[in-house]
Amino acid sequence: MDASIIKKVRRAQPLIHHLTNQVVMNFTANGLLAFGGSPIMAKAKEEAEDIGKIVDGVLINIGTVMPQDVQSMILAGKTANERDIPVVFDPVGVKASSFRNEVAKEILQVVRPTIIKGNASELAYLANIPWESKGVDSVGTGDVEEVAIKIAQIYETTVVLTGETDVICTGEELIHNMLGHELLTRMTGAGCLLGSIITACLTTNDPTELQAKTAVSFYGLAAQYAATRQNVTGPGTFIPQFIDALSMEVEALRGGNYA
Amino acid sequence: MDASIIKKVRRAQPLIHHLTNQVVMNFTANGLLAFGGSPIMAKAKEEAEDIGKIVDGVLINIGTVMPQDVQSMILAGKTANERDIPVVFDPVGVKASSFRNEVAKEILQVVRPTIIKGNASELAYLANIPWESKGVDSVGTGDVEEVAIKIAQIYETTVVLTGETDVICTGEELIHNMLGHELLTRMTGAGCLLGSIITACLTTNDPTELQAKTAVSFYGLAAQYAATRQNVTGPGTFIPQFIDALSMEVEALRGGNYA
Amino acid sequence: MDASIIKKVRRAQPLIHHLTNQVVMNFTANGLLAFGGSPIMAKAKEEAEDIGKIVDGVLINIGTVMPQDVQSMILAGKTANERDIPVVFDPVGVKASSFRNEVAKEILQVVRPTIIKGNASELAYLANIPWESKGVDSVGTGDVEEVAIKIAQIYETTVVLTGETDVICTGEELIHNMLGHELLTRMTGAGCLLGSIITACLTTNDPTELQAKTAVSFYGLAAQYAATRQNVTGPGTFIPQFIDALSMEVEALRGGNYA
Repeated sequence: MDASIIKKVRRAQPLIHHLTNQVVMNFTANGLLAFGGSPIMAKAKEEAEDIGKIVDGVLINIGTVMPQDVQSMILAGKTANERDIPVVFDPVGVKASSFRNEVAKEILQVVRPTIIKGNASELAYLANIPWESKGVDSVGTGDVEEVAIKIAQIYETTVVLTGETDVICTGEELIHNMLGHELLTRMTGAGCLLGSIITACLTTNDPTELQAKTAVSFYGLAAQYAATRQNVTGPGTFIPQFIDALSMEVEALRGGNYA
Repeated sequence: MDASIIKKVRRAQPLIHHLTNQVVMNFTANGLLAFGGSPIMAKAKEEAEDIGKIVDGVLINIGTVMPQDVQSMILAGKTANERDIPVVFDPVGVKASSFRNEVAKEILQVVRPTIIKGNASELAYLANIPWESKGVDSVGTGDVEEVAIKIAQIYETTVVLTGETDVICTGEELIHNMLGHELLTRMTGAGCLLGSIITACLTTNDPTELQAKTAVSFYGLAAQYAATRQNVTGPGTFIPQFIDALSMEVEALRGGNYA
Repeated sequence: MDASIIKKVRRAQPLIHHLTNQVVMNFTANGLLAFGGSPIMAKAKEEAEDIGKIVDGVLINIGTVMPQDVQSMILAGKTANERDIPVVFDPVGVKASSFRNEVAKEILQVVRPTIIKGNASELAYLANIPWESKGVDSVGTGDVEEVAIKIAQIYETTVVLTGETDVICTGEELIHNMLGHELLTRMTGAGCLLGSIITACLTTNDPTELQAKTAVSFYGLAAQYAATRQNVTGPGTFIPQFIDALSMEVEALRGGNYA
């Protein structure tokens, strides 16, 4: 983790356009604000290009996607590619329906993501590797490194494969992150907000793998810190503490007496 | 209440498809996750059948419904009926507009719910019994048992009528639940999340009335427990504690020193 | 601030129709409920008039607006004008795209708001006064009073311009509010919920400027109180306390030991 990337984000307060799902919009906006970024969540395709011209990064997350949302995602992503600003693509539940699969394929045909981020089941599906899933969650086990490498190759992009251990693959390099906490799996939107934090970190002038590593490590560290706060008795009381932790300095998070 | 039903739900972690309103999506997802279920909230009609084939239960809630959502609700409900998995129908605010009334009627013509769940005003309206309401809330008083019985007869289904005392009607039997807390009426989505918890409980191999009774009793008990937690000073601080309580064992909730 | 206005709201529990953005729906509903109002959030144009006939006030907020939402906003606003009930218009991010600009203009051509509420950048844009913005946030500085006066003149309405100091302009009078807290700027939806609280206060039989002043002062006071609660360590833990504070009496909020 490179704490200077987080400092740069907080100084610049990058404006991140979120084309994301309805379940997590409020949580994601509050999480990114706490971290130090600035969220905008326009949905209409009529404004996707205008918004695309004023933002510093774009997150495309296909949970709860409707047909009328796809064009906005494509326009925002293409505008970001033209302006050479980062795009993160999160294929939430891509395996759950042929519609969502087709939406993912359609977006990936015209938008070049800086990072593709997903759980093992989602990315395995995009890589044509068999994997067990349940709804939008990955429940199987297998060679996550193989999946990450294959996605990096097929889509010529950096990959963040989330799980108990997160795997970051640049195509040339594999990086692992073991910071994190089980409570992140017992709430909704933990992966979605991580996509937003990653997008914010991608707006600095640092190597992509270092930005990705910093985002996922910081996120895991914040979760560990929050989980050990007094009065945290489950996912409901964890969430407000986690939001607060996202606004803290790395040093302070490390001072927490997590196990 | 039969605590073994809750244990079974937690073991199976049933995947519940939510066609629900935009106000409560995040809260519902977190509440069901805490309870032990697994939420999926796909909205597009293009994927309603695919999702319908992989889930264990379906919740249809017509709050904030748009015309483009109705077909998804119908497809998901019909697929659930064909697969013989539970469907819960929550006619939120059905009385507030002729549009919403027509949507409810349209759904009920082709989808057979395992349970219809609503407040007195909503169910009275569906049963053609006069009742006072205010927006999406029931404010009048009357014979709630008559309403529940009539809905059970008309729609040949089990009914959960929520209120200070919840009434469950199987057509043959009336069951009452008095566990609950006033704070549930001072937050948004308490009824909506209950619909989700009921759907999860319906996925076990137990009698419907016992599943329904267990869901509403457990929900009320969790609310009572959460309301007496230290630091709860109103609806805002109640919500995180309530989410945590939903993840607890019945015995632990009963140990709480609620009045 | 006139505490009797808040008492009247809590006695009447006015039903407020929210045509608002997807990011803040849950937070707004919980905040208004805590304050003492009753939210309804119907979205379909097919029910905008029916809902418009049963409510006590209407809030139109164009964040995340989609083309299919505009007709609902117009129908709800026109119905409110015909029934002579209050309408608050919040032009969220109006400057961010020509689409959103056109939506705002289209609404303002046919709906007469009782109050237009926005930050300096949004209102400056509607008044053709140059101002710096960033996404949906105002970051520049300038003569906020000039902006408020010009909006009041152009749209013949009362204006609430939010910022570190809020400016209320009736066309004849300028009122300032300095109650508030910096944490309100570090969470999403603080301005959106304020719009809802203002709408609720407009339903009493008091002068508009007093209603507006009461709403913004109470809101700021509640934020100050919440921010100094034990265990508040950032925006995440602030939010539940803020919701609770919105349900409190003015006297109790004043008793808090805020700086």
